[in-house]
This record gives sequence, C-alpha cells and structure tokens, in this order.
Amino acid sequence: MAPTPQSPGAGERRAGHLVIIGGNEDRDNDKQVLRRFVELTARADPKIVVLCAAGATGDTAWKVYDQAFADLGVQQRLALEMASREDANDPKAADRLLTADGIFIAGDDQKRLLAVIGGTLVHQALHKACDELGRCIAGTSAGAAALSQHMMHDGGAGAPAPGTALSLAAGLGLLQRVLIDQHFSERQRLGRLLSVVAQNPTLIGVGIDEDTALVIERSGGGLEVVGDGAVTLIDGRQMSSNFLPGPEHEALELVDVKLHLLPAGARYGSAAKAVPPALQDIVSILTSRGSPLS
Amino acid sequence: MAPTPQSPGAGERRAGHLVIIGGNEDRDNDKQVLRRFVELTARADPKIVVLCAAGATGDTAWKVYDQAFADLGVQQRLALEMASREDANDPKAADRLLTADGIFIAGDDQKRLLAVIGGTLVHQALHKACDELGRCIAGTSAGAAALSQHMMHDGGAGAPAPGTALSLAAGLGLLQRVLIDQHFSERQRLGRLLSVVAQNPTLIGVGIDEDTALVIERSGGGLEVVGDGAVTLIDGRQMSSNFLPGPEHEALELVDVKLHLLPAGARYGSAAKAVPPALQDIVSILTSRGSPLS
Repeated sequence: MAPTPQSPGAGERRAGHLVIIGGNEDRDNDKQVLRRFVELTARADPKIVVLCAAGATGDTAWKVYDQAFADLGVQQRLALEMASREDANDPKAADRLLTADGIFIAGDDQKRLLAVIGGTLVHQALHKACDELGRCIAGTSAGAAALSQHMMHDGGAGAPAPGTALSLAAGLGLLQRVLIDQHFSERQRLGRLLSVVAQNPTLIGVGIDEDTALVIERSGGGLEVVGDGAVTLIDGRQMSSNFLPGPEHEALELVDVKLHLLPAGARYGSAAKAVPPALQDIVSILTSRGSPLS
Repeated sequence: MAPTPQSPGAGERRAGHLVIIGGNEDRDNDKQVLRRFVELTARADPKIVVLCAAGATGDTAWKVYDQAFADLGVQQRLALEMASREDANDPKAADRLLTADGIFIAGDDQKRLLAVIGGTLVHQALHKACDELGRCIAGTSAGAAALSQHMMHDGGAGAPAPGTALSLAAGLGLLQRVLIDQHFSERQRLGRLLSVVAQNPTLIGVGIDEDTALVIERSGGGLEVVGDGAVTLIDGRQMSSNFLPGPEHEALELVDVKLHLLPAGARYGSAAKAVPPALQDIVSILTSRGSPLS
C-alpha cells in the first residue's frame, strides 16, 4: 500500500521521483509501470497531468493514457497538449504543471518535444516540479530520452563506427551526465549506446527495455527497476577506445567498458538494500539534481 | 604477402592459429575470412581439409567450401565427411587430418559434431594438429562453438533468467575457459551470453559476429579480428550477480561485468601492437593450450 496523505499545500516538498520508461509500457493489462508511477505520487487522490508535446498526434496519446489512468482509479486526469512554443509559454499551462502530483511526458519524437517546450515556461515549471517541489515525473520513449541534459537526436539505429558521430541534442536537463536509450533490447541498441559512450565517455549510458522503468528517488538516493525487462548501464569512464581515429583499423574498439544489468524488481539505496560498491558512484550520478535552466 | 615456405615435413611444428568464425562468412565475394585462413597456413600450395561432421548435409557444405577455396587458388582440397563414429575412428581419416596445412570445421549442429567425433581418433588428431603441430584450424558457426572445452548446447536464443540454467555441453577442448557464441549481433545473443557468464563466471564469453573471425595465434600470444563485424568479450570474473536465487527479485542482475568490443582490423600481441593492460589476462587465456584429451 502506498502512503496516502491528504491534499498538501501546493508548494510542499516531496520525495522527488523520476520514472524513466523504455517505451511501450502496458496500458491495458497489469499496467505495472503506470501503476508504480501513480503510487509514487504518494497521494490518495492524485492529480496526473499528461504532457503531450512530443507527437503530432497528441490527442491520441492523451486518449490512451486518460483511459489507462482512469482504469488505475485516478480521478483527476488532465491533458496538457502543446503544438507550439506559444502554448508552452502560456503561464496557465506552467501553473497547471505545478499543481500536478504526477507529470507524465508522452513519447513520439524527442526533437519535437524540445523544439516545442525547450526554454519555455513549461520547461521551467518541469524543473521546479522536479528539483524544488519533488513531484513525480515520468517520461516514456521519446519522453524518457528527453529527460537528461544530453539526449539522442533521434530514434534511428546505428552500429558503432568511429568518426561517425552520433548526434546528440540538448534535452530537458532533469538528469545530468547520463544518456538514455529506450526500446533497448527490443531494438538492439547496445551498439549505438556503446558508440555514444565511446564518443562521450563522461556520460553513463542507460538502456531501458520496453514496458520497464528505471525509477530514481532523488531525496533518498535510491534506484528501482519496475516492469517487464531490464536496465542496462554502460560505464565507459575507464574505457580505452579508438574513437579518435588511429591508423590501425576503422571500426570501433572499446576496451574495459563496465556493464551492469539491473532487472525489474531490483532496488538499491533508500529503504531497500544497500547499494553495491560497484554501483555507488553511478547511483550518486543518477540521483543528483539536474542542471538548472540558465 | 604471406610467407611461402616449401613443403615441410609432416611433423613440423608451426605457429598454430585458431580461426574462430561467427558463421555466415562470405564465400562468394571478398572472402576476407576464408582468405585469411588460407594465408595463415603459411604455405604456397596449402592442403586444406574440410571437416563436415556437424551437419546431415555434409555434401552441400563441402561443395560450397570446395568452390570457395578453389576461387582462392587452393589446389589441394579434401573433404572429410563423417556420418558416424565409425567414420571418425577410422585411422585413415585421422591421418588425413594430420597431413593438412589447414583444417576447416564446417557448421550446422555442434551437438551432432561432438556426438560423431568426440573422443575418436579424429578428435585426437585435431588436438595433435593444433597443440603439437601448430596447424591452422578454423571452425565456423557450430564448428566455432565447438572449439572450446565448454560449448553452448544449441543455437536457441534466450533472455537472462536465473535458475533457468542454459545447458552447456563438452566441446572439442582446443580452447579452455571460454564460451563461444556465434552469429552474435545478428541473433542478438548478448542476453544469453551474459546469462551463461552469470552461471559460469570462470568462463570468458566470446561473441563473434557473422562474417567475422577471431584469430588466435598460440605461439606468439596474439589476437586478430578479421572480417566484417566485431568480437565482444564478456568478462564476469569480478561481477556480482543474483544467479544463486535470492529473495529479492527473480530476473538476472549483474553488477560489474567487463565488456570489450574488438572490431575487425584489431590486432594485439605477436607482431602487432602491444596488448592493452586490460586485455592481457584475457589474451593469455585465449592463447593458452587447450585441455588434453584424457
């Protein structure tokens, strides 16, 4: 049973969770991932806002989530559909976000999401909700990819190849020093995530399977994996690679990459089991505050 | 240009190469992998024996390789097709293997290969050719999987799951302490290789892409990757995992796995560049002598 406090003050500080979903989460049957998101609002009667700005088909996304959250017993459901930067600079839209107990960022195209809300009042409100108010924020697929400071430019596949820089773009910045890749096992994205880490060894690669979420608890310093698949962490900080092209061969060489595979059900830190020493550093990166909007 | 000494004495000791091919190597166009195998025999007029025992369709495999090696200018080509243990215990068959400059083990089904030749005179001859005479031995697909002491039982896929032990079986033993998985990227086998390493942390997982070979030079302690793809090494010796089932969750958790990605064109040790410190231990395992037949 989730704790069920009564309606709090609008500015009340809460635990602060990010629910980073690898896309294609179940919306019809067990709804494990969406259910956990609702629980993490820690409210008996939570208000959920679904931010539909990543897709041209915002209306469709809203219908799906409206039904799924209704099935989970959520009474207060609200769409925030945005087609333009004017929409995202509307103070009323930003205020709506700040009243939400849970904010769910729907997927489709992370470039579009950032083109519409990047730097706007809605983007600022997301930071305030996350960093100051400790609200629960979820993103799925493109909405997950966009949560970090650096994001994949698009959803294309790609085998590792040095010289062929995979384009990164500026994301929402609620997480720092990580690079999120979604649909990870399903779209066989290990190669491209290794390639990005080779090019950007300061970033921890986070590959999230479909119907699976990495839950980050900011205040308690905890991680949790929910759903059906696993989360693969790629740490190349001690790696050597030939990304700076050398004379010897052309394809990507990586020596000494660390890989961690965290399955659904795994919990570390917070109230759960202690963080294994080999993961402490990464947990500290994942649970640290995002980069402020300038 | 490969060195081209004249015909040697039958018992002459040579460098000793294993050419471990991830299957589906090109036989019609550039033939990079097969060409390198022929070069490594280091003979101007090498005798190549193709061992067809892994498939019920030995005749077909022979026709394909007969043509491919002819296209590469090999004059002395010989099939060794085996349908039964009687065939494999024929001293003439074993003698034929020992006269070969290069032995090519065709693929199909590694269980069948071992059921036919395991423990026979032909198996003993393979060990003598490899360990004592330093001949060049290649295996592709099932013929690659079978080279090590422990091999995958079959070609089925499988996601990591603790408790669900992936069956290993006894291989040819020309390599020790490694587990070879072929068609690696193409059949998305990272999950199953991680699972096997979790269950067998003394083994180094070696995933080889199609049309790609890991070449091991025994005497010089060198590695080389040839062909089109990459070789992925999975080292779980310092890993912690939940393979022994715990109360916390059911799916496989792996913390601190080392991953190395070696692309075609990479060379280490021997005459090539020095082995990176992080790879020295693995190179030493890969280049060490196989386990003797008891």
